[in-house]
Amino acid sequence: MKPLVTIAYCPKCHWLLRAAYMAQELLTTFEEELYGVTLQPSETAGHYSIRIGDDVIFDRKVHGGFPEIKELKQLVRDKVSPEKNLGHSDKK
Amino acid sequence: MKPLVTIAYCPKCHWLLRAAYMAQELLTTFEEELYGVTLQPSETAGHYSIRIGDDVIFDRKVHGGFPEIKELKQLVRDKVSPEKNLGHSDKK
Repeated sequence: MKPLVTIAYCPKCHWLLRAAYMAQELLTTFEEELYGVTLQPSETAGHYSIRIGDDVIFDRKVHGGFPEIKELKQLVRDKVSPEKNLGHSDKK
Repeated sequence: MKPLVTIAYCPKCHWLLRAAYMAQELLTTFEEELYGVTLQPSETAGHYSIRIGDDVIFDRKVHGGFPEIKELKQLVRDKVSPEKNLGHSDKK
């Protein structure tokens, strides 16, 4: 079974568009590697987290903001496909 | 546990954008009722289906095309929240 990414977002904060954007970026880059990406409205105000299976790889409240797409792709790559070259998303 | 909607799409047909659009429409209308919406790349060419849990409510090959958003919201409403009024999406 391929891994499932879940993006949990606070709908009251209007973060659905941001979550949907990140989902599309991940599904474009990891089309073969992922089972899918779930967009999940969270009941917790200000919540924005990203997990692979049950493993939280990003939490806005811990990180103090949102991830850059490049950084997010590196986090996902390291978990689901460590050998994968991300091209320009691997450069600093 | 709230119901999970899954939109399975053919990435080779470039239907991610369409699937992401429909996911956002459903999450806007059913923010309280759904656990979430999963975008799932399908390995089957030409595949586009929508399910609630394991229950397929729409299949492009059966239906012969894509659902209108109004029609899709009615299908989802009938399963997850039969009493919900969809406003202008309930008119013909």
